[in-house]
Amino acid sequence: MSGILYGIGVGPGDPELITLKAHRILQNCSVVVYPAPDDGDSFARSIVAEYLSPEQKEIPIVIPMRVERFPAANVYDEKAKEIAVHLNAGEDVVVLCEGDPFFYGSFMYLFERLSSDFKCEIVPGISSLMASAAALQRPLAARNDVLTITPAPLPDDILLERFNSGDAIAIIKIGRHFARIRKLIEEAGLLHRAGYLERVSLDNQKVMPLAEVGADKAPYFSMILIYKGAEDWIKGLEMPNTDIVMKGKA
Amino acid sequence: MSGILYGIGVGPGDPELITLKAHRILQNCSVVVYPAPDDGDSFARSIVAEYLSPEQKEIPIVIPMRVERFPAANVYDEKAKEIAVHLNAGEDVVVLCEGDPFFYGSFMYLFERLSSDFKCEIVPGISSLMASAAALQRPLAARNDVLTITPAPLPDDILLERFNSGDAIAIIKIGRHFARIRKLIEEAGLLHRAGYLERVSLDNQKVMPLAEVGADKAPYFSMILIYKGAEDWIKGLEMPNTDIVMKGKA
Repeated sequence: MSGILYGIGVGPGDPELITLKAHRILQNCSVVVYPAPDDGDSFARSIVAEYLSPEQKEIPIVIPMRVERFPAANVYDEKAKEIAVHLNAGEDVVVLCEGDPFFYGSFMYLFERLSSDFKCEIVPGISSLMASAAALQRPLAARNDVLTITPAPLPDDILLERFNSGDAIAIIKIGRHFARIRKLIEEAGLLHRAGYLERVSLDNQKVMPLAEVGADKAPYFSMILIYKGAEDWIKGLEMPNTDIVMKGKA
Repeated sequence: MSGILYGIGVGPGDPELITLKAHRILQNCSVVVYPAPDDGDSFARSIVAEYLSPEQKEIPIVIPMRVERFPAANVYDEKAKEIAVHLNAGEDVVVLCEGDPFFYGSFMYLFERLSSDFKCEIVPGISSLMASAAALQRPLAARNDVLTITPAPLPDDILLERFNSGDAIAIIKIGRHFARIRKLIEEAGLLHRAGYLERVSLDNQKVMPLAEVGADKAPYFSMILIYKGAEDWIKGLEMPNTDIVMKGKA
């Protein structure tokens, strides 16, 4: 009997924002896999560190940080083989995924290499999208609103078209694109409706109106949420009130 | 000292798909509020029934089922007053929200009535969007894909435009719009890329290629996921393989 490959969402950062199911599976697997940077600690591992035990084997997947399109196929090929050895030996393997495994996550690279040979189960996680709306204390979308998720690296014309056509817009993967994105949002006349969020649910979380952000770049774990739909509740929030400008966890 | 109003996501249906945080808060609040139909049980309450205790006071919010735009302002006005009495008495109140509180949820109607007078905390939940991708075993979106969430009641031209412009599309609130939506997806040439999901994470979950769904309507808790982005992994999934046509929980 082969083991099972689990891809579990570990949420946006607060260790309490994982599900009971992910928590159970995490503790029952003998092998734990997670993404890690060249240098420094794995964010995904740090979220669930308190739930791990020294008996579990750990396999970090170290992906060189690069700007160009995903260059790490060889790393995944090799790690998939290493994981397959454990699965073939009947060991269950859990892969830790920041946020949700299938919402712009890297779990798919292991999944596509292993899912035809082994039983896989995906446990959904709290994505930064939902966690950001919770921290901003503003609904993402309601009733018949169209909600559009747009990665910041897209070209200006596509971004502007999306800003114009959606009722609610979430901009992800901001990083070095911050200054350009902010300018485009201003051009679209939406600056006063945009909230900026950073490291949501962590102790150093930052939530503020985009208009008040002075920086010209943003960390990888940041997001901008815009609402321009027709809901009544937005009236009082057009200019985010000072209550939502806060640092630190609630 | 007033109590705190918590809006917690209870996830898509499986009681194990709530977060550790929601689980803790749920057990520490003396008052539990949840939406309920005219007739029958509350779905949100049924998800967490095993975590409730007889000492907790319960406040169901009964909204008459209607097709027209939200008619229940009076119900929320009245329930908000009832909740305020508990909060003023120093009791913490938890509102159960199917999926995530701020992803097309009705929690906003209580939130807008109470959040200026009382401390509120939102605990994000597993939305049916992420749970559906997990059940379909197919990523929602990757890299620079644009992901668009479109409610089914929108008019044909807007839906078609969104189907054409997005890389990944999720269609929610399907119900009686099923036949029309299916026809529009066929018109857009996307039927072979569409997965249909029903009652995700519950024992009677249904996951199948949209092309194989014979019905002319769908339950409220259903979703269609379409992927037409440029990712390599989609090649093997253009026609969903038989492994993902399954009934019942994995």
